[in-house]
Amino acid sequence: MTEAMGCKNCCSICLQCLFGYETNVMLVINNKGVGALFRLIQFLIIAYVAVYVCWIQRAYQDTDSVISSVSTKVKGNILTNTSIEGVHVWDVPEYVIPPQVSIFGEKSFLVLTNVIQTPGQTQSKCPEIPSLVTKCESDSDCIEGHTEVHGNGVQTGHCVQYSDTIKTCEVQAWCPLENDTIIPKPALLGAAEHFTVLIKNNIQYPKFSFRKRNLLHHINSTYLKNCTFDRKTDPHCPIFRLGHMVTEAGEDFSIMALKGGIIGIFIDWNCDLDFPERFCIPKYSFSRLDNKNPENNIAPGYNFRFAKYYKNNKSIETRTLIKAFGIRFDVIVFGMAGKFNIVPTIVNLGATLAFLSLVTAICDWVMLTCMKDRDQYAKRKFIHLNQNGDSVPLVSKS
Amino acid sequence: MTEAMGCKNCCSICLQCLFGYETNVMLVINNKGVGALFRLIQFLIIAYVAVYVCWIQRAYQDTDSVISSVSTKVKGNILTNTSIEGVHVWDVPEYVIPPQVSIFGEKSFLVLTNVIQTPGQTQSKCPEIPSLVTKCESDSDCIEGHTEVHGNGVQTGHCVQYSDTIKTCEVQAWCPLENDTIIPKPALLGAAEHFTVLIKNNIQYPKFSFRKRNLLHHINSTYLKNCTFDRKTDPHCPIFRLGHMVTEAGEDFSIMALKGGIIGIFIDWNCDLDFPERFCIPKYSFSRLDNKNPENNIAPGYNFRFAKYYKNNKSIETRTLIKAFGIRFDVIVFGMAGKFNIVPTIVNLGATLAFLSLVTAICDWVMLTCMKDRDQYAKRKFIHLNQNGDSVPLVSKS
Amino acid sequence: MTEAMGCKNCCSICLQCLFGYETNVMLVINNKGVGALFRLIQFLIIAYVAVYVCWIQRAYQDTDSVISSVSTKVKGNILTNTSIEGVHVWDVPEYVIPPQVSIFGEKSFLVLTNVIQTPGQTQSKCPEIPSLVTKCESDSDCIEGHTEVHGNGVQTGHCVQYSDTIKTCEVQAWCPLENDTIIPKPALLGAAEHFTVLIKNNIQYPKFSFRKRNLLHHINSTYLKNCTFDRKTDPHCPIFRLGHMVTEAGEDFSIMALKGGIIGIFIDWNCDLDFPERFCIPKYSFSRLDNKNPENNIAPGYNFRFAKYYKNNKSIETRTLIKAFGIRFDVIVFGMAGKFNIVPTIVNLGATLAFLSLVTAICDWVMLTCMKDRDQYAKRKFIHLNQNGDSVPLVSKS
Repeated sequence: MTEAMGCKNCCSICLQCLFGYETNVMLVINNKGVGALFRLIQFLIIAYVAVYVCWIQRAYQDTDSVISSVSTKVKGNILTNTSIEGVHVWDVPEYVIPPQVSIFGEKSFLVLTNVIQTPGQTQSKCPEIPSLVTKCESDSDCIEGHTEVHGNGVQTGHCVQYSDTIKTCEVQAWCPLENDTIIPKPALLGAAEHFTVLIKNNIQYPKFSFRKRNLLHHINSTYLKNCTFDRKTDPHCPIFRLGHMVTEAGEDFSIMALKGGIIGIFIDWNCDLDFPERFCIPKYSFSRLDNKNPENNIAPGYNFRFAKYYKNNKSIETRTLIKAFGIRFDVIVFGMAGKFNIVPTIVNLGATLAFLSLVTAICDWVMLTCMKDRDQYAKRKFIHLNQNGDSVPLVSKS
Repeated sequence: MTEAMGCKNCCSICLQCLFGYETNVMLVINNKGVGALFRLIQFLIIAYVAVYVCWIQRAYQDTDSVISSVSTKVKGNILTNTSIEGVHVWDVPEYVIPPQVSIFGEKSFLVLTNVIQTPGQTQSKCPEIPSLVTKCESDSDCIEGHTEVHGNGVQTGHCVQYSDTIKTCEVQAWCPLENDTIIPKPALLGAAEHFTVLIKNNIQYPKFSFRKRNLLHHINSTYLKNCTFDRKTDPHCPIFRLGHMVTEAGEDFSIMALKGGIIGIFIDWNCDLDFPERFCIPKYSFSRLDNKNPENNIAPGYNFRFAKYYKNNKSIETRTLIKAFGIRFDVIVFGMAGKFNIVPTIVNLGATLAFLSLVTAICDWVMLTCMKDRDQYAKRKFIHLNQNGDSVPLVSKS
Repeated sequence: MTEAMGCKNCCSICLQCLFGYETNVMLVINNKGVGALFRLIQFLIIAYVAVYVCWIQRAYQDTDSVISSVSTKVKGNILTNTSIEGVHVWDVPEYVIPPQVSIFGEKSFLVLTNVIQTPGQTQSKCPEIPSLVTKCESDSDCIEGHTEVHGNGVQTGHCVQYSDTIKTCEVQAWCPLENDTIIPKPALLGAAEHFTVLIKNNIQYPKFSFRKRNLLHHINSTYLKNCTFDRKTDPHCPIFRLGHMVTEAGEDFSIMALKGGIIGIFIDWNCDLDFPERFCIPKYSFSRLDNKNPENNIAPGYNFRFAKYYKNNKSIETRTLIKAFGIRFDVIVFGMAGKFNIVPTIVNLGATLAFLSLVTAICDWVMLTCMKDRDQYAKRKFIHLNQNGDSVPLVSKS
């Protein structure tokens, strides 16, 4: 046996390496103080792992991010009566701009709420809208070919009468120019508050081959045809009243309709896939995304211009310019799914086990520093060997 | 030496702390049973780490999610012959709606497959399409200013003749109203099956400064001009026949064309960036995203309305309303790239090492409970010290 | 005491289990070589954890991916003078296609830079544009009902005169056909270089309930009205000159304007949320996304066709087909936020502690193989017990 240990017999060594089991020699101290401290810290760490790591953070799971596809469909009609157009009914293809985007799945749809129309524009020359930089006294104040960043066209170099008292630089542009200083109040299409939108959302977690729709299995088509989303009574209905969403976002629809804005529709698909699939249901929430604070902001609200093009009897192209204010709804789908996986489990448990070795270090320190029998303990715990190889066999001394 | 150990000489202590090397005293047991168990469990854990953690899960890698940009371009023409329009050729700007979105990179494009046109609509009054809620006997059944959610306009309060036998409430709307009860069958633009779409996809993994395109380096432009995607013969060709994609998704194009739907084009960029860049290639797959099951569904298929606006000779605005059924193709790009990183490597190896310490605990338990020499082992393994500091020096006793 | 150890007294065993503290018996070797090696490796691992894991990789943090919403608004006008249209001023609703998308938040906007117009198209018959497959000698070369993939319509089966010398197959199509062989040079709307775009970007990290806008708090609206982004002087201004972005992407605007292309506007929101919110600011960068290399590419550049529809005096539908070349700007928002979390901290520290146990293994190996006193060390370190339970009490022998 001593020979094998002295590394003289190869075969014996190999056997010993393979089947010789090595285990630590332990010093057992029947000291209630240190023992209790040891068990307490051990208990705290194990409790942390059980409660926080496993239960709350679900660290035993592998995770995946959601991939989603959205389509939306708005319903509703509005009658308006303006001096320019007379009585006019706005239907979906007209007030959802661009019409097909309403259902086009770009995860956003826009509902017009207010409109400034400038009909009969043609390519011609007309005086600019008066402003600090466009007012002039004579032709020398205007530069031919110059384009104001905030202007409506390209200057011709002439200074012409805008009204009886004001002269402004003439521009080549789509004339007559739009005058957008007066915004219709209340909002022309404020009745859009009562419109509804159907949001269809298909999601998947590719790592887990998991797919689901926000039209849940247990909901039948009869219910879907008549329901409207309500956090308490109909939390799974995918049909939303526009006004309800704006209210839930903490805004007033009639005020927001004037200048437009952006509302986020958040669909939260956080799921624990260790549970049955029916517990994985979407949670909806709403909030305003754009900055309504005019302090550090430019162009508050949400507006844009578009035009309808016509050719008149003389084949000259005319257009109706529309400055449209609207509420854009961004459907933002997010979520993480988790499912049991051995790798994160091992990593988290292993790391916690490694932490448990710290407990021994702490208790050793307490034992060797604070206990009255610390010298006794140290004698038993440490076997000293000095640099010369002389042994200091403390255990055998006792 | 005893003095230093007794903590009376600071300098000596420090030296000892810095250069005194502490190592565990081990008990070596030449028991083949426990030894074999110990090696077996050790082997299993190391094999798990090598095979599953390192090879399959690649836990030694840092990961990043893909960022991508897509543009698409559809090609093809269709000739139709209808009573309303006569012979009509549909080209890309007409049947890809909105035309520019076809290439607009919104990761979606829509190809019209079926169309119900209602030409000559103007703002006027006409009877509603008959339904349970719009049929009436007299004016008192209709409410002025009322808007039906599923109606086409705003009621005027009059009950008028719809046909010889049916009276319905009159509405202010774009008249004549669309009658969409009869859907053209076979689909008007069913020939879209033979169209092709070119999908250009640029991706990047910002964490690894990695960029790539789905137009792979080794493919030349001559090949690209003539190829069509086929899983077996041309798996890297970025030009897809619409019908082929629908078939791969397990659907019948001619049936799907009638009412429309959504097809997902999944581009999977999962890459192991420890390998050369040329091994990082996209994998394409296709599946239907919308719910064709009519049970728990509303508005199955995929349709929307849009209009073309005209002014007639008397400068009155007319429009052609188009109810368009189409197949929307959502290009969904996903993927994770992994590259060797020291942090996950250390974490995974460290955690596994910590797990190995569990093996000792199990073997100790076997050794001290099941072996016939368990008392001998226990005597050697444990040195007992009672609370009074009295030593129970088992080792020296033997 | 011996009885309890011999497992004969249950109560005593339990107490011992609960409060008997077990600690390893250590062999302390005053060998400067091994001691120094031990401390050095320990120091290296601790330094790695402190510097790399904690400081650089911030492995003590939980992370979340950014969710974002974007809106854009382009400003500027261009005057063109062409033989087809005469003098024409292009404003935003005309050259940002589709107009509303400019602000429509699809994270992309497109600015037209070059245009080929084909006015007065109607549904009729005309000869195809000559090419290898469309040229013909007689009607037998043309197939009635055939649609060329790269053709403009559906063949009627007739071979007709295209010019004095060339005959091509006749097609039913929107005639006259577009001839896009000559691209206007310099680009018709090359002046778009001087346009500016305002990009509003709202982000959030849902896991940390953190929200922010790229219109930073400390910036007031007066500054925003006049600033233009510049990496050095105005790095936080969200208004970008188109030409500046293209230049930063390493391209020449006037060349890129001819055939179009795609520019990525990258907004990097990587944030360390352990720091105050004001340090979380977006970083902008730009690069060209499409492939300008004509080698392995088809349809280089970026173009699409759209049409404006009219009805002429005889109520026949005509359209102006526009082949538009443009620069698409993709706003790509990315980023990861990190915040202190106990789970990754424990995992990383625990795994590192586990690694420290490797150090002991290495030093043991050095001690037992390379040191001249290795036999002395081995005698002290290992207590051998052979399979028969005979003890080999090395320690007591010395």
